[in-house]
Amino acid sequence: MPQYIIGIDVGGTKVAGGLVDLTARLVKSAVVPTRAEKGFKASFGQIAKLISVLVKCAGGRERILGIGICAPGPHNPQTGLVINPPNLPGWRNIQLTRLIESKFGVPTKVENDANAAGLAEVLFGAAVGYRDIFYVTVSTGIGTGIIIDRKIYHGKNGVAGEGGHVSIDYKSPYRCGCGTLGCIEALAAGPGMARRARVRLEQEHSAPSLLRELSGGHHELISPKMIEQAARQRDPIAREVLDETGFFLGVWLAGMITLLDPEAIVIGGGVARIGKPLFDKVRQTIPHYTINRQFAVKTPILPAKLKTNVGVFGAASLFLPGEC
Amino acid sequence: MPQYIIGIDVGGTKVAGGLVDLTARLVKSAVVPTRAEKGFKASFGQIAKLISVLVKCAGGRERILGIGICAPGPHNPQTGLVINPPNLPGWRNIQLTRLIESKFGVPTKVENDANAAGLAEVLFGAAVGYRDIFYVTVSTGIGTGIIIDRKIYHGKNGVAGEGGHVSIDYKSPYRCGCGTLGCIEALAAGPGMARRARVRLEQEHSAPSLLRELSGGHHELISPKMIEQAARQRDPIAREVLDETGFFLGVWLAGMITLLDPEAIVIGGGVARIGKPLFDKVRQTIPHYTINRQFAVKTPILPAKLKTNVGVFGAASLFLPGEC
Repeated sequence: MPQYIIGIDVGGTKVAGGLVDLTARLVKSAVVPTRAEKGFKASFGQIAKLISVLVKCAGGRERILGIGICAPGPHNPQTGLVINPPNLPGWRNIQLTRLIESKFGVPTKVENDANAAGLAEVLFGAAVGYRDIFYVTVSTGIGTGIIIDRKIYHGKNGVAGEGGHVSIDYKSPYRCGCGTLGCIEALAAGPGMARRARVRLEQEHSAPSLLRELSGGHHELISPKMIEQAARQRDPIAREVLDETGFFLGVWLAGMITLLDPEAIVIGGGVARIGKPLFDKVRQTIPHYTINRQFAVKTPILPAKLKTNVGVFGAASLFLPGEC
Repeated sequence: MPQYIIGIDVGGTKVAGGLVDLTARLVKSAVVPTRAEKGFKASFGQIAKLISVLVKCAGGRERILGIGICAPGPHNPQTGLVINPPNLPGWRNIQLTRLIESKFGVPTKVENDANAAGLAEVLFGAAVGYRDIFYVTVSTGIGTGIIIDRKIYHGKNGVAGEGGHVSIDYKSPYRCGCGTLGCIEALAAGPGMARRARVRLEQEHSAPSLLRELSGGHHELISPKMIEQAARQRDPIAREVLDETGFFLGVWLAGMITLLDPEAIVIGGGVARIGKPLFDKVRQTIPHYTINRQFAVKTPILPAKLKTNVGVFGAASLFLPGEC
């Protein structure tokens, strides 16, 4: 009788795995390096090793209900194909579901990490009690997931919900890695924030700023954390950059509300941990960029609840029975 | 035994109505003026008069399966509330469903016009055979409808699918009637096209243009039709304006594909009738503004099939049994 689900979160530098019981309790977790730079075979070896350890912990594969795997980038959940994860350069059109299933003889599902995290927030995170949400994770990139009726919305090709690559400024000077000008990811994710801070430091080159000190004059080292720290100490440039980040996210989320009219928006990821100053600006901006103002102001903008292990929980939630 | 559906399309100047049989054949149609300027009571009187005529035509109310009504702007289909249709200024939070049901004793549904038109295109228009589409109508405004699994997607408050009010340029000089800067409606609908043509004629005030002749020097009279006509005669300003319209629609639809990954996009409305030059530019632009390039280029961009009476068919389709 299966008692556990294995959740695997494949990242660019590490693979996190966990054994989750059917009440969504994490009973065991482990991490191995991804070794992405050594190509797909090396990474697959690492993933397989981690799964083997967790299967053993569970007391054998017959006790595993399923293996859920999440990774960044577009996937095809129908075919289990990982298409082209941006931070796993050696991976291209990998039949990950088939490979894992044939190695372990356990049902396997593969999912985009933001989609899985969004589902996990609905099943046992910030959005418990909601059925239709728009999930956002803001960190090195911006990932999104559309959850409708407590299920991931996949679209025709399984690549729906790539909201981080919707442009809010078609003639922006900032081009995203995906090629699009003015994607919210290019503007408001961590590297975009740091880039805007560097531009301001250059433009206002005679203005004093704590960011110059924090980075030791090496502007290429500026991180969202430094911006947050400087803003907290009322550094004007850092505050402008932070404020602008909230404004950009607000404009973009206003569009998502206008289009999808979700029950709630959940925002997670490292940058979102900045918290109140960012969320306040997001909430202030939304009513100015939507036709559905009277409803938009009532749409809850919630901080994500799942933090560490969100990927493992997200992956496991692909097999967890919902309360539908 | 009910044999007919009544479809009513409430516009700013006229109300169109039709008697549609269960095979989606229009057996009778009629039009009355809306009299919106005289307030809600006057308009309601017109709608009721039209319905009475159609009920009589059908041979009595027991032969009517339902009355479908569509009108522009945000609605709440759960409560039948028409919230604030922009071109029916006297209407605000009108319980239209209840009012019609109590007057005629026939089940009534009220729907946003673009949502209803999108459903009609899936049931018996350009998108027959598809289940998940993004519908767009480009005319005086830009209305959109999200159809998922052959049903209108309404969101939490019933106001989902207002895609015409998603911004692609948060700092645009063009502000929409809804208050948002750079909505696709402000940029690419008929009045937006005409506005951009006027700006160009002013900026390039010494450049000759057929648009100056067609409008008799009265630039405020410039219409999308004149722009189309001048572009066909290779007028450079008109061609630029038309090209830019296709580009804007392409940027915006790329975002919709990135987010929703629909099976197809259907474009209707007066401006869309410009046809090939507009559709070509839309199709050229999409791959440059999406991360899902390999799928986006394969997403069919179809011209709408229902033209005259699209509103009546859309309204009637709220009661037509799908082939699900």
